[in-house]
Amino acid sequence: MQEGTEISSGHPAETGRGDVYAANCPTRLLLDRIADKWTVLLLTTLADEPMRFNALKRRVEGVSQKMLSQTLRQIERDGLVTRTVEATVPVSVTYAITPLGLTLVRALQPVIDWAETRMPEVARAQAGYDRRPA
Amino acid sequence: MQEGTEISSGHPAETGRGDVYAANCPTRLLLDRIADKWTVLLLTTLADEPMRFNALKRRVEGVSQKMLSQTLRQIERDGLVTRTVEATVPVSVTYAITPLGLTLVRALQPVIDWAETRMPEVARAQAGYDRRPA
Repeated sequence: MQEGTEISSGHPAETGRGDVYAANCPTRLLLDRIADKWTVLLLTTLADEPMRFNALKRRVEGVSQKMLSQTLRQIERDGLVTRTVEATVPVSVTYAITPLGLTLVRALQPVIDWAETRMPEVARAQAGYDRRPA
Repeated sequence: MQEGTEISSGHPAETGRGDVYAANCPTRLLLDRIADKWTVLLLTTLADEPMRFNALKRRVEGVSQKMLSQTLRQIERDGLVTRTVEATVPVSVTYAITPLGLTLVRALQPVIDWAETRMPEVARAQAGYDRRPA
């Protein structure tokens, strides 16, 4: 309410919006989940095309089988991706982004762009910090 | 390289951009850090005005003292905030956002807006998921 809300477009009580700074607000719980590297990487990957579990695992380097299953289940539950099982042998499971998921990817794109283009400035800041006397 | 890069504006090798999908790319390490709920909440709070440690702790509900110190140290090292110590009694420490930090906040704003406005759709999806037979 006090400091910090100017950055969003109004007072939560006036706008009916959630308040991400309040620990007990459902939108804060949602932000906790979308501000997560695996969610970001999976959604942006699936925004291009539907993909099977194993292809996702290869594409998003460094993700464990367990973390991948868990994150996919959460974002399926949130309505951001769909999971389709085909009765082939072996069974094939394909994930695809939903229209709601696409709205989140569009919102995330500036953050990905920022990470991919601002790294030199961040690296200079880190070098300066590390050179300081302890 | 293959799938997934259409969502950003080109092939990393052609554009000189990083590749967030590669586990060993520095931009991936950077995304890991900015796709973090505490970083998001601290930066958007400091975008409004400089703030002392204790005021930040009150504003960002649910953050522990240790997590707050650690996240602030990381984002100071990344050049996103400055830390100013005044020799008062007791010493007062104020954090302020940098111009680089402000560029990240601008990139994050659509994600905050998404979380604050799309919650009803997500809640409906969750209710549908939870109603399915196990």
